[in-house]
Amino acid sequence: MKHILLMNGPDNKGLIYNVTHVLYNHNQNIISQDEYVSPSKQFFMRTEFEGEGDPEKIINDLYSTLPTGINLRLNPKKKKDIVVFVTKEHDCLGELLIRYAFDELDATIQAVISNYNTLQPLVSKFGIPFHFISHEHKTRNEHEEAILRTLDIYKPEYLVLAKYMRVLTTDFVQHYPHRIVNIHHSFLPAFIGANPYRQAYERGVKIIGATAHFVNDNLDEGPIIAQDVKEVDHRLTAIDMATLGKDTEKSVLSKALKLVFNDRVFIHGNRTVIL
Amino acid sequence: MKHILLMNGPDNKGLIYNVTHVLYNHNQNIISQDEYVSPSKQFFMRTEFEGEGDPEKIINDLYSTLPTGINLRLNPKKKKDIVVFVTKEHDCLGELLIRYAFDELDATIQAVISNYNTLQPLVSKFGIPFHFISHEHKTRNEHEEAILRTLDIYKPEYLVLAKYMRVLTTDFVQHYPHRIVNIHHSFLPAFIGANPYRQAYERGVKIIGATAHFVNDNLDEGPIIAQDVKEVDHRLTAIDMATLGKDTEKSVLSKALKLVFNDRVFIHGNRTVIL
Amino acid sequence: MKHILLMNGPDNKGLIYNVTHVLYNHNQNIISQDEYVSPSKQFFMRTEFEGEGDPEKIINDLYSTLPTGINLRLNPKKKKDIVVFVTKEHDCLGELLIRYAFDELDATIQAVISNYNTLQPLVSKFGIPFHFISHEHKTRNEHEEAILRTLDIYKPEYLVLAKYMRVLTTDFVQHYPHRIVNIHHSFLPAFIGANPYRQAYERGVKIIGATAHFVNDNLDEGPIIAQDVKEVDHRLTAIDMATLGKDTEKSVLSKALKLVFNDRVFIHGNRTVIL
Amino acid sequence: MKHILLMNGPDNKGLIYNVTHVLYNHNQNIISQDEYVSPSKQFFMRTEFEGEGDPEKIINDLYSTLPTGINLRLNPKKKKDIVVFVTKEHDCLGELLIRYAFDELDATIQAVISNYNTLQPLVSKFGIPFHFISHEHKTRNEHEEAILRTLDIYKPEYLVLAKYMRVLTTDFVQHYPHRIVNIHHSFLPAFIGANPYRQAYERGVKIIGATAHFVNDNLDEGPIIAQDVKEVDHRLTAIDMATLGKDTEKSVLSKALKLVFNDRVFIHGNRTVIL
Repeated sequence: MKHILLMNGPDNKGLIYNVTHVLYNHNQNIISQDEYVSPSKQFFMRTEFEGEGDPEKIINDLYSTLPTGINLRLNPKKKKDIVVFVTKEHDCLGELLIRYAFDELDATIQAVISNYNTLQPLVSKFGIPFHFISHEHKTRNEHEEAILRTLDIYKPEYLVLAKYMRVLTTDFVQHYPHRIVNIHHSFLPAFIGANPYRQAYERGVKIIGATAHFVNDNLDEGPIIAQDVKEVDHRLTAIDMATLGKDTEKSVLSKALKLVFNDRVFIHGNRTVIL
Repeated sequence: MKHILLMNGPDNKGLIYNVTHVLYNHNQNIISQDEYVSPSKQFFMRTEFEGEGDPEKIINDLYSTLPTGINLRLNPKKKKDIVVFVTKEHDCLGELLIRYAFDELDATIQAVISNYNTLQPLVSKFGIPFHFISHEHKTRNEHEEAILRTLDIYKPEYLVLAKYMRVLTTDFVQHYPHRIVNIHHSFLPAFIGANPYRQAYERGVKIIGATAHFVNDNLDEGPIIAQDVKEVDHRLTAIDMATLGKDTEKSVLSKALKLVFNDRVFIHGNRTVIL
Repeated sequence: MKHILLMNGPDNKGLIYNVTHVLYNHNQNIISQDEYVSPSKQFFMRTEFEGEGDPEKIINDLYSTLPTGINLRLNPKKKKDIVVFVTKEHDCLGELLIRYAFDELDATIQAVISNYNTLQPLVSKFGIPFHFISHEHKTRNEHEEAILRTLDIYKPEYLVLAKYMRVLTTDFVQHYPHRIVNIHHSFLPAFIGANPYRQAYERGVKIIGATAHFVNDNLDEGPIIAQDVKEVDHRLTAIDMATLGKDTEKSVLSKALKLVFNDRVFIHGNRTVIL
Repeated sequence: MKHILLMNGPDNKGLIYNVTHVLYNHNQNIISQDEYVSPSKQFFMRTEFEGEGDPEKIINDLYSTLPTGINLRLNPKKKKDIVVFVTKEHDCLGELLIRYAFDELDATIQAVISNYNTLQPLVSKFGIPFHFISHEHKTRNEHEEAILRTLDIYKPEYLVLAKYMRVLTTDFVQHYPHRIVNIHHSFLPAFIGANPYRQAYERGVKIIGATAHFVNDNLDEGPIIAQDVKEVDHRLTAIDMATLGKDTEKSVLSKALKLVFNDRVFIHGNRTVIL
């Protein structure tokens, strides 16, 4: 049987030795092990191992061997439950739906929530619940409360903002700490905020990009998971850039979700450690 | 004989026709022609053509045929005279010197100016004058005046800031409008200002970059000529990023200078049009 | 009204002048014009222009002005009719279907043909005819004749091989000369033929790629339209590479089709000229 | 004190545990550890650790703890002695000389050998011996023997072929097994052999590349260390591609040498494992 062990905490002499010792005693074979020690002396490790034996005993032995302050997760749930947020753009959503339909997403899309009903026909092709929760005639708080009530039905582990064009309040974000992944259509930290392609056009950049990141209190400032770029030239208008950029947005979001859903992303302050 | 014609001004019906008509009458053969009309209706064209005939007559015929307000440049000087500015880093300078030594730079390096003498030994290998003009014990104005006096010896067409780590005043820049090319070690407009790799590290980006641009009054905000990027991960410290980034800086500066020195770069507001 | 003029043939002095002259006489305004003269002196030009006036008169004037041997196409049909071929892989097909559903494909997918029925459920979500034409118990010729009979229903302008894993005979290809676009899952000409990711793994390459090309008589040897690559390392198995490569295949095929369907691709021997 | 341990051999349960156990007993702190197990069950590991203690005792304890058949290297020599081979092109050589002059190469360039004297002036600027060993009026064997006699003076650990345009015989290569690094100006395995940019032009590719690899008996077929690519279009002639490609060649060779000289490259059959 194959196991995944995630571990992080203050660095300490012998951490790797102690873990491999316990695994060796339990007759487990390490398939891969990747670790990182930050300049601030935080230790992160991801270990895949296999063998017969009781995972519960293994984790107990690990806890009793390792110093206090070390976080351990053994065998996190394989398929994450997610709810996808969209506004009107179909590109990222389409990609997620196709991947999900062929069981390539490492996640279950429980529902799609949107402040417009534009994408309902697409979502319904795939037999997934679509919740149209308009923001019109609602305060920001009322709108978010309506969303939270809908989320209560599903209790997702992650929210995926697949071109959701509304800013979430700090209150909302705190319901899902480090569990909201957003795709921003610029190479952050360039062009924070609205209309990044317009900003990119005005600035005359020769490369545009996209950034997938966790959402924290400040818009567009959470830990970055993945980024990619594409070359442009003076001939492209802001609208051309937006069209061209969609491919990058899709592939960056897909890449980031693969990393997150496979438990490869640790958060370290405002940075990610990807093992 | 081969000629290059550069042309820009307000768009107008028949501009291309009128130019090709004149060239046709003078029995010239167009080798390549590239043009661009901006959304604000500015016209830019670069034409290479060849044939016998008197260039002066051609340009006169062009002026008499084309509407007023059109700028024409026929056969700009092939090899530009340049002065290179550096501080202590050798990478971009080394690249320029090697290219120059093998006549690949499309420019003549008249001299190197630096506020440190660190790179004098490298420059002297290539037999190029090196002017060490320290900024110490001088006001900013005194320092720039000393530089301007040295520049007066050479009367260069372009200044190339090849990792010159000092900000130039507006006064200084106005002596060389759109004739100063700088390499900035970030993917502008991200990480404007000092220590961009440190900023990139702190922000936890997954891609770093470099930007070659014309210098205008505001630091790091002039028209962008070329950009490129490189992937990084959490393992890289700010110093690792700086080391890795040097390759990108070198190749971006080289690419930008090739475009500028081959008269392919038009300036359009704060953007470049590259034909 | 906006027009597109495509033109190619032997190079000749005055070609650009003659075209712009005719357009000027018809009071047309050139929006963009891009031309290329090959080392073998073949001329290619793509012109976008707009204005009132009779396109038929314009083309007649062009024919009477230009030397014989020049091919002209004015205003090629905007939306191409296409039939998509697949085997079992859904990635490229899914991308095409989503783009088609949102009218972003510049083409009408008339039908999907497959030698397996694996992808029928996906295609049917989008209301497009799916023809399952098994190759089992058929000679290669019988199979291709069955396909040709189906194609006779639709009379498509282009066939798109979106991971169709069977080699087409020369006979078949000659029914659609330069009208079959294939996506090959390697960076051609490396790894021609079957199982390119396995070949890439065995060779230990550090970069994998994908190539969209026109199909000619020799497998994987027709004119290349677009290519892209992705970095890999020793940890990836051939299967990992195949998974990772799908993103590149999708985006390269999309990019190539956009170019072909927008009439930007000229064929010049075994090369493409993209204007 | 900081140490590097390189280890490879048949995979076995407990290898990581046994190594970390020994290091723990010697009171060493692991800074980084990276390992890989191939599908054919070969184990590779690179460990950086630091602490007081006798390296000789550590390696003895490792040998007595680990199964036979495991190769260990502790603290390989930091700065490699190398001889660089060139023909007439200066780009890669210039890059190496500049890096060497500023102590960034992780190697000592003992000498440059060339079959032409074209690059002597450049090399002499840097005070490095230049051996002009013409191949004219010599058989291939006589030429290689002359080179080997020169190499005997220096006894280099690595030979770097920095655009050396002659094929080495199997006999010659066997003097430096896995110790010759070559830069090939194509994206191998595409365009093996002579004139790869000409081949690339003829094939009409949209991307060109460069490959750094170890030289084995068959030309251009040894284990690949690093590759990179650059986009091209139909406008580039074979000569344009060669010019554009030089930047890629330089950066790929630099990257590969950095990996090799920092003992990060293991050879595994015809592939490299880079840790």
